[in-house]
Amino acid sequence: MNGTVYLVGAGPGDPKLLTRRGLELLQECDCIVYDALIGQELLDLARSDAELIFVGKRSGQHSMTQDEINALLVALSQDGNSVCRLKGGDPFVFGRGGEEALFCAAHEVPFQIVPGVSSSIAAPAYAGIPVTQRDVAASFAVVTGHTAGDDAPPEALPVADTIIFLMGIKALPVIVRRLLERGELSDKPVAVVRWGTTSNQQTVVGTLSTIEAEVKRAGLKTPALIVVGEVVRLRDELRWFDSRPLWGQT
Amino acid sequence: MNGTVYLVGAGPGDPKLLTRRGLELLQECDCIVYDALIGQELLDLARSDAELIFVGKRSGQHSMTQDEINALLVALSQDGNSVCRLKGGDPFVFGRGGEEALFCAAHEVPFQIVPGVSSSIAAPAYAGIPVTQRDVAASFAVVTGHTAGDDAPPEALPVADTIIFLMGIKALPVIVRRLLERGELSDKPVAVVRWGTTSNQQTVVGTLSTIEAEVKRAGLKTPALIVVGEVVRLRDELRWFDSRPLWGQT
Repeated sequence: MNGTVYLVGAGPGDPKLLTRRGLELLQECDCIVYDALIGQELLDLARSDAELIFVGKRSGQHSMTQDEINALLVALSQDGNSVCRLKGGDPFVFGRGGEEALFCAAHEVPFQIVPGVSSSIAAPAYAGIPVTQRDVAASFAVVTGHTAGDDAPPEALPVADTIIFLMGIKALPVIVRRLLERGELSDKPVAVVRWGTTSNQQTVVGTLSTIEAEVKRAGLKTPALIVVGEVVRLRDELRWFDSRPLWGQT
Repeated sequence: MNGTVYLVGAGPGDPKLLTRRGLELLQECDCIVYDALIGQELLDLARSDAELIFVGKRSGQHSMTQDEINALLVALSQDGNSVCRLKGGDPFVFGRGGEEALFCAAHEVPFQIVPGVSSSIAAPAYAGIPVTQRDVAASFAVVTGHTAGDDAPPEALPVADTIIFLMGIKALPVIVRRLLERGELSDKPVAVVRWGTTSNQQTVVGTLSTIEAEVKRAGLKTPALIVVGEVVRLRDELRWFDSRPLWGQT
């Protein structure tokens, strides 16, 4: 009998932000199929005899294609295994969960979706930035830096009070240029958050005109997300996670 | 000594979507300050001697103003209590968490943010609708029905491949009209999801031209959210939660 494939959001990095349901499945499933950015602390929660299968991208190493991952999930299920497919953040927010679910459905493999805390909202929160705020931001949009890239049409860039770009740090110059081109003010606040919600979290704040220089000065690299909007100013008063004594001193 | 105020996202309804950190705080804190839509199953997880304080809105009853809630959180903290401020979804997604955090900060009350699974993403997921999908939706935006209402300027309506309107069912006619006015096609798919992620979940699907009649026919009421975008079509293949045998037969 086919085992169920659970597409599980592992949350944004802090292992305590895994859901109760995610924990349950991690502890119960026969196989854990996991991506890069899934922390060891989560994997340690798996059953001691569970099969742990890494399918993420590591620089310089062979990594599985999406087709190979899809085929793996179905094969594991057809061998009778329950499968916890563990993804960073939420499986349906740029997690390719939809593709994996469609492949399961096409092969009559039972699947369930276990939503997770999305880094798009949680990483700003740990930096003291609410994505919405009364009288400041009544909407937010989420997009990937890739989508906002040079080869994308102008209408690919969403419009909202707060815009969050995931995996956007390489595209930062293009994102800044395109936002300015469509009329955003150069003093619009921008934050870049690296390793959000983890003990390595780093946040750099500036404006559309200064953020590139600030990011360069701080030496900030991927994985990071970009928040554009007036809500970034709230960090002055709301930063709580990285303002503790001895933060970053280890 | 002031106790810490934890602004905790309770998730979208399914109590299993509470985070591990949320559970920990619910079990540890001296006081639980909770909104409407927080299920009894979550409250049952609190310490047996914890003080449970309801501050949500119930029709026909007195409910606390935001100023009163802010003052309550600070007063409880100043009496030395640890406070779990439990909010539906995520505290920073239209949860007024930013306002409560600012008030704590202004009164030198220590606070922490515990992000939650947002219903904006999870309710569509339980209806079989991914908010993003390769080649279908490369961005999504979230807004309240209130913001999209009649008295709001046209630019208040965000632009993205998928748009999710929270608390939008009363504003549905206005939302439909305004989307059509700005040039969206009348056959654009729309889903309305009520009581998302709970055993009462109900989903109605249509297009911009048919959704009002469909919602009326189904008798759908609040609390519900609206999803507009091509991703809604994926529900045909991806519905998993409400397609189980005996669903809705109890």
